[in-house]
Amino acid sequence: MMMKLLNSAELLSYVASGTRVEFCGWVKARRKYKEIVFLDVCDSAGVVQVVIDKTNEELFELARQINQETAVKIAGILTETGRPSPPKEICVQEIEILGASTINVSPYPRSNIDIFDPRLQEQLLENRHFYLRNEKIAAILKFRYMLTRIVHQWFYENGFIEIHAPVLTPTPLYDDSTAIGLTVHEQEVYLTQCVGFYLEQAVHAFEKIYNIGPSFRAEESRSKRHLMEYWHVKAELAFVDFEDMVATVERFIRDVSEQSIRQGNEFTRVIGTEMCRDGLKTPFPRIDYGEAIDWLKKQGSDIEFGKSLGSDEESLLSNRFGETPFWVVSIPRSIEPFPYVLNPNDPRCTKTADLIASRGFGELLGVAEKIHTLPMLDERLQEKGKGDDPRYEWLRELRQYGCVPHGGFGMGLERLIRWFLQIPHVRDTIPFHRAFGRRINP
Amino acid sequence: MMMKLLNSAELLSYVASGTRVEFCGWVKARRKYKEIVFLDVCDSAGVVQVVIDKTNEELFELARQINQETAVKIAGILTETGRPSPPKEICVQEIEILGASTINVSPYPRSNIDIFDPRLQEQLLENRHFYLRNEKIAAILKFRYMLTRIVHQWFYENGFIEIHAPVLTPTPLYDDSTAIGLTVHEQEVYLTQCVGFYLEQAVHAFEKIYNIGPSFRAEESRSKRHLMEYWHVKAELAFVDFEDMVATVERFIRDVSEQSIRQGNEFTRVIGTEMCRDGLKTPFPRIDYGEAIDWLKKQGSDIEFGKSLGSDEESLLSNRFGETPFWVVSIPRSIEPFPYVLNPNDPRCTKTADLIASRGFGELLGVAEKIHTLPMLDERLQEKGKGDDPRYEWLRELRQYGCVPHGGFGMGLERLIRWFLQIPHVRDTIPFHRAFGRRINP
Repeated sequence: MMMKLLNSAELLSYVASGTRVEFCGWVKARRKYKEIVFLDVCDSAGVVQVVIDKTNEELFELARQINQETAVKIAGILTETGRPSPPKEICVQEIEILGASTINVSPYPRSNIDIFDPRLQEQLLENRHFYLRNEKIAAILKFRYMLTRIVHQWFYENGFIEIHAPVLTPTPLYDDSTAIGLTVHEQEVYLTQCVGFYLEQAVHAFEKIYNIGPSFRAEESRSKRHLMEYWHVKAELAFVDFEDMVATVERFIRDVSEQSIRQGNEFTRVIGTEMCRDGLKTPFPRIDYGEAIDWLKKQGSDIEFGKSLGSDEESLLSNRFGETPFWVVSIPRSIEPFPYVLNPNDPRCTKTADLIASRGFGELLGVAEKIHTLPMLDERLQEKGKGDDPRYEWLRELRQYGCVPHGGFGMGLERLIRWFLQIPHVRDTIPFHRAFGRRINP
Repeated sequence: MMMKLLNSAELLSYVASGTRVEFCGWVKARRKYKEIVFLDVCDSAGVVQVVIDKTNEELFELARQINQETAVKIAGILTETGRPSPPKEICVQEIEILGASTINVSPYPRSNIDIFDPRLQEQLLENRHFYLRNEKIAAILKFRYMLTRIVHQWFYENGFIEIHAPVLTPTPLYDDSTAIGLTVHEQEVYLTQCVGFYLEQAVHAFEKIYNIGPSFRAEESRSKRHLMEYWHVKAELAFVDFEDMVATVERFIRDVSEQSIRQGNEFTRVIGTEMCRDGLKTPFPRIDYGEAIDWLKKQGSDIEFGKSLGSDEESLLSNRFGETPFWVVSIPRSIEPFPYVLNPNDPRCTKTADLIASRGFGELLGVAEKIHTLPMLDERLQEKGKGDDPRYEWLRELRQYGCVPHGGFGMGLERLIRWFLQIPHVRDTIPFHRAFGRRINP
């Protein structure tokens, strides 16, 4: 057995000076003097200063030549330094090299680099497997884990159960061309774009459900908030209408913001940003899609009714609303997929809304009331060219078998992370990113 | 707003008799008498008896004709029946039909069918979107959710963080032919067979990590414990050896068993099985792979050293060990993939072990100490025909950049559910199953 029992933070906090300790980590820095060598040995929790003096010549020579990023096991006496920083260090008795460092990665991943500097992006993305060791990148991913836990917990406390929907599906939500297709045993299928179809079936058994899992879009978009493979938070409720869904999402964003602010400071301090507080104040203001188009035109935009808002339009609107997310309500049927209820007050539109983040971070999520009657579903399937497509028959069947008013919301986890942490690009919020038009490597 | 505020269990427990209530659900059964109609209206939490007498003739006629599985909203007075079962019922004042039921699904999903009856399997699998409404199937999936929460919680309490590894990967673990391949932007990639490669990179940043997510195997296997798409629980630790991994997994199985037994009774009562208690007693017995082969041959098996144990061999061994899971240790290099350390005491074998469930439920999971030096990795890559394959270069790089002793374990979530619940087939443990050679529908 060799299992490491204490990390650097535990070792420095809980172990008494004068104790012989063992510590495993990576050599982050080395300072050589005539009679003494200092090594900064780090792990996932921090750094321990390690001292080797000339009394043991063999160790001293080893320490003088040790490379950055060499993995070591140190044994020695934990000692007070008498200085404020660091207050303790290990006076070394043994060094075991666990893994040599023989290649050069520049800039050094564990150094204090600006991970958002555009000039570094190629290097950081191509060598992501090394740059996960960077303290700021690691802090973003630790925050991602914390936020995932907060989201799971919110659903649990609100009576939802998680339903793991499949990735392989014969039924894409949007056009087949924006789905990633593949052939499995001579059958053409797709990677899920959205698990909504599966959730709306399951909601007739469980009433309140959610799914957090990978989702895939082959959209030709290279924006700061699109990934080809992302983690999609999807929820579905039975016996709700549009207003219930809006209220549910506002509670969700408010509660999750509150928890993230409460627990997230240790991460933003490392990353060098501030946690967004704009989600705390509900309800969020609303603007009708049609009204937004009219207003945007007055601002000089060439957007037309029936077109999706782009990031330029979202930014303009974001300036208008200030430091709050806001809803764009009643999106046209021409740009929304088929399962959403038509708006009885304006049949050009659907009972849907997009929540746009504050400060120009763009669309966060969408909510919709789903169609629960067959004639409206058939009308919409026809309209989207899927009227006679047998792959959608199970969705028609649902509307003939005790279908209830239901609705859902869907959100890219990476967009929420980006907004909360206020960082430039979603690619930094996921351990290994896949983006449209970029080679998958690795 | 129409949001349903109380489910059936809450309504019957918390609301005082004499109160006017509203309740939404599905008509599960109807009993017609001359002067009175009883409806059993169910939801995800139970059943409410609803009474309609002839005083309101219009309602009475509606109730007499209402179909099974019609979705309804009931308003009426919650009333004591004076009988032990049910103690309360709703005397109806209004019935609103939310969704008609116009197709016939037989057997009726919400009826008390034997969901494991082989004669029902085709119907249940082909119409899974309806049979999710079956109480036993729903109970299995609620248990799945509970178990997922227990597993996440175990990792949290043991200092792991979750790393969401990608599904799309250029680097399959096993042969390319057992991976599901696809072309994305003219690049040939695969659906992940195992996220181990990504975790072993990330473990050099985070030390203790895990991932629960979908994983894909195109193996030609139609056994009771194989799925083409399944949820894979993978964990990876830095600074560990083989014995640490075995000890970690034993604690994991013991703790997760304990929690499942504590919380799972309400589900097994519905499903009609008993929760498995065999994982409670650790350490689990071990048998060396070579010794197992010798013993199996004596029992008349025609297995040879260097072949994988099939379910017949696992069952024979399971009979030998009785009511405990057991380890098969030191699996040959010929049948294990390349990243695992060779056994210094027997270089034909690797420092790996498979944990086989009790009672013939077969392999549950595998643990391995991973290679952390370049020469051994190169030897194994060569051996597996991947020596010059540039897709594995990032794994060679890891071994040149402060690589530490590390290890992992991987387990199909569905196998753990099947064993805990003691149910015949993994297909019943996942909401929508995908199996080798079966059309994906839906």
